[in-house]
Amino acid sequence: MKVLMCIPNISEGRDRKIVDQISQEIRKTAGVKIQNISSNAHHNRTVFTFLGPPEPVLEAAKAMAKKAFALIDMSRQKGSHPRMGAVDVVPFIPLRGLEIQDAVEISRLFGRFVAGLGVPVYYYADSATRPSRTYLEDLRKGEYEGLAEKLKSPEWKPDEGEAIFNPIAGATVTGARFPHILFNVNLRTQDRSIAEKIAEAVRYAGGGYRYVQATALTLEDKNLVQVSMSLTHYDKTPIPRVFETIRSEAGRYGVEIAGSELAGPIPMGALEEIVRHYLKAQNFSVGQIIENVLMD
Amino acid sequence: MKVLMCIPNISEGRDRKIVDQISQEIRKTAGVKIQNISSNAHHNRTVFTFLGPPEPVLEAAKAMAKKAFALIDMSRQKGSHPRMGAVDVVPFIPLRGLEIQDAVEISRLFGRFVAGLGVPVYYYADSATRPSRTYLEDLRKGEYEGLAEKLKSPEWKPDEGEAIFNPIAGATVTGARFPHILFNVNLRTQDRSIAEKIAEAVRYAGGGYRYVQATALTLEDKNLVQVSMSLTHYDKTPIPRVFETIRSEAGRYGVEIAGSELAGPIPMGALEEIVRHYLKAQNFSVGQIIENVLMD
Repeated sequence: MKVLMCIPNISEGRDRKIVDQISQEIRKTAGVKIQNISSNAHHNRTVFTFLGPPEPVLEAAKAMAKKAFALIDMSRQKGSHPRMGAVDVVPFIPLRGLEIQDAVEISRLFGRFVAGLGVPVYYYADSATRPSRTYLEDLRKGEYEGLAEKLKSPEWKPDEGEAIFNPIAGATVTGARFPHILFNVNLRTQDRSIAEKIAEAVRYAGGGYRYVQATALTLEDKNLVQVSMSLTHYDKTPIPRVFETIRSEAGRYGVEIAGSELAGPIPMGALEEIVRHYLKAQNFSVGQIIENVLMD
Repeated sequence: MKVLMCIPNISEGRDRKIVDQISQEIRKTAGVKIQNISSNAHHNRTVFTFLGPPEPVLEAAKAMAKKAFALIDMSRQKGSHPRMGAVDVVPFIPLRGLEIQDAVEISRLFGRFVAGLGVPVYYYADSATRPSRTYLEDLRKGEYEGLAEKLKSPEWKPDEGEAIFNPIAGATVTGARFPHILFNVNLRTQDRSIAEKIAEAVRYAGGGYRYVQATALTLEDKNLVQVSMSLTHYDKTPIPRVFETIRSEAGRYGVEIAGSELAGPIPMGALEEIVRHYLKAQNFSVGQIIENVLMD
């Protein structure tokens, strides 16, 4: 049983009818299951989360993109979220029975399809064709408004398609990436600067762990502050290591961890290191979990 | 998707041909998957582990029992493991999409079938008809050899079938129970008496946790001792609580935990308390694990 997840971000979060028509394209693909559709009017952006076997997921992504290009006009699009195209970014995430390389192949097929519609395509994350294209933030610099100029530079030659500005569609970023885990740790203090120092200590950008993105938040209703994180490669930067670093850093300020939240869907593999670490059960494997045994 | 597990223990662990014929009865039932067959010649006992939807599992258990009664003669059976019958004990364990009460119903259907073959049946564990029949050890007291006498007492009237001694088949115990977890904790010492004291401290029989069975072992090859446990209700006596009690008790003797092992298949639900406890993630649910999300 192979399961691939796809989380396209499109630059329309206000017009319900357009979002419905685009989601319909995903829904009508047999074998694909939509897990979430989240529209934000301020961002003017919608994020679809769907999954299934690789072939139907690719077909659904293609149908989704084709419809989005037909309905969204970037020359008139405004919103608070950074974006470069109508179909802004389309990550493919291997969830089960697939290696990251399999998802890279799927992203290439998707990229070629989009380029065939006359839209320049860039590959990011594990599909990146050079290190400077690994991070979405780097690729998206200058946004849609800077794209016409950017395409004139050889440095920004698209990975697929011609270096010709498409004013209606903009450009699309796609690629394969490891599943992300949303992990929030609450601290028993109202001093947000402590959460900020700890976020800086654990995140890659601040010299912390390679696969941690982190920001500090205030939880008004709870009188707590929070280190809000995305763990982007739980195999290489596992949950307990990050948690224990936060515990240790918080201790410097005499602050206790009040609790944590694992938000959203969590790959079973992410639990392996929690069991191994805390129970000192070095040989524990998620293959021992009955759900996995059953599906062999 | 409903999954029931059945782990019949039969009183034959030496004659390969007999074991094969009996396992064939399970194997030929469509929808049932054999996970393990473990024969022990010294015990003269074989343990089958199989699973599937409730109906095929019940059918396989019936076919297995019928064949075992035809091939095993208790009047000539000897072995080191306590036993009362040819089909000695048949637990039914709800693994997925089933409540314990569903498994109780299945055990009743199985019990009536066995009684129909002329074999007295006792219900144990969650199927017990009175508290004195809850524990297998209590039911099995006197073993096969004491059964003829036992059946004359009103106290030991079978739950199904007549109180008539069947010298070929003996008696059968069946019932529904929660999945057990085999959990071993290794201590960095060669002093086995410390493992014995800790086993006594955590186990029900010694005044410890209600759902813990524990013994002490010496691991010669590792120069360690071990507290070897069966956790019989991981929801009510969860893994981290037992682990932390062992850590605390070991500390009294200046002994560290060297490691632990979760042996065999583990229900996903057993991981919930590990994550909640160590990450202080009170709201974590195994329903968040992607494997579960996928199968909704």
